[in-house]
Amino acid sequence: MPKINRLFASPEATENAFYDAIARADLDALMTLWADEDEIVCIHPGAARLVGRAAIRASWEAIFERGGVHIHPTQRHVVMSSMSAVHNLIEEIRHGDQEPTQRHVLATNIYLKTPAGWRIVVHHASVAPGAAPVDTAPSSTLH
Amino acid sequence: MPKINRLFASPEATENAFYDAIARADLDALMTLWADEDEIVCIHPGAARLVGRAAIRASWEAIFERGGVHIHPTQRHVVMSSMSAVHNLIEEIRHGDQEPTQRHVLATNIYLKTPAGWRIVVHHASVAPGAAPVDTAPSSTLH
Repeated sequence: MPKINRLFASPEATENAFYDAIARADLDALMTLWADEDEIVCIHPGAARLVGRAAIRASWEAIFERGGVHIHPTQRHVVMSSMSAVHNLIEEIRHGDQEPTQRHVLATNIYLKTPAGWRIVVHHASVAPGAAPVDTAPSSTLH
Repeated sequence: MPKINRLFASPEATENAFYDAIARADLDALMTLWADEDEIVCIHPGAARLVGRAAIRASWEAIFERGGVHIHPTQRHVVMSSMSAVHNLIEEIRHGDQEPTQRHVLATNIYLKTPAGWRIVVHHASVAPGAAPVDTAPSSTLH
């Protein structure tokens, strides 16, 4: 199944598929990206944590009732090991004409290399005050 | 240096040393626990992210000017791979007599196995509304 292999071939590919599924409100596509582990964790901005597939699926189903959410991940910082990848990024969330200057959203996304490719084990998003700062530290996107 | 080896022998040992250093307001001890990587990230609850050793050190120095912070990590969920460990937990923060019932703090702590032992690469803490829920999902502490 080359299509599935390509989809999970790298943490970046899985992350792209994650935000693409959120934009399209595609619940099944989104849930295939998570690792098959009891301990998967999802924290939506300003919300309590959710542990396990059933709770995570229900939360996204509720979000998708209002349609997809267009999120553009920027200013990504990456720490890799052979079997895991940690991405910390700023989520630029598109709200139509409204410019999100009063706050921004930070996310830590963690991927594990499984026999079925790179899968999400943790998505931790939270709100920070003010506009997203311009990142002056060296970013992994420049490496 | 057996003392140093023991200190970083496992992600749990490094995590215990992390919260112990915060309780004692020991900045040097705290900073030795972080990995020697450009991309280390620290997000304090409700704050913007900090990338790199200098910014992270300065933030803790400012916090420690008011003394140590007593944090008891509870309801830990763990995902391990051979070279990394992801801990998601609730931080019970002791504020003297004040019971923190209006909100609680969630943290994702990520550890990497380095030649110098298990070191922190990301500490992402955020605020969630309400009292900390009682965790009914299977916890790694029971495994």
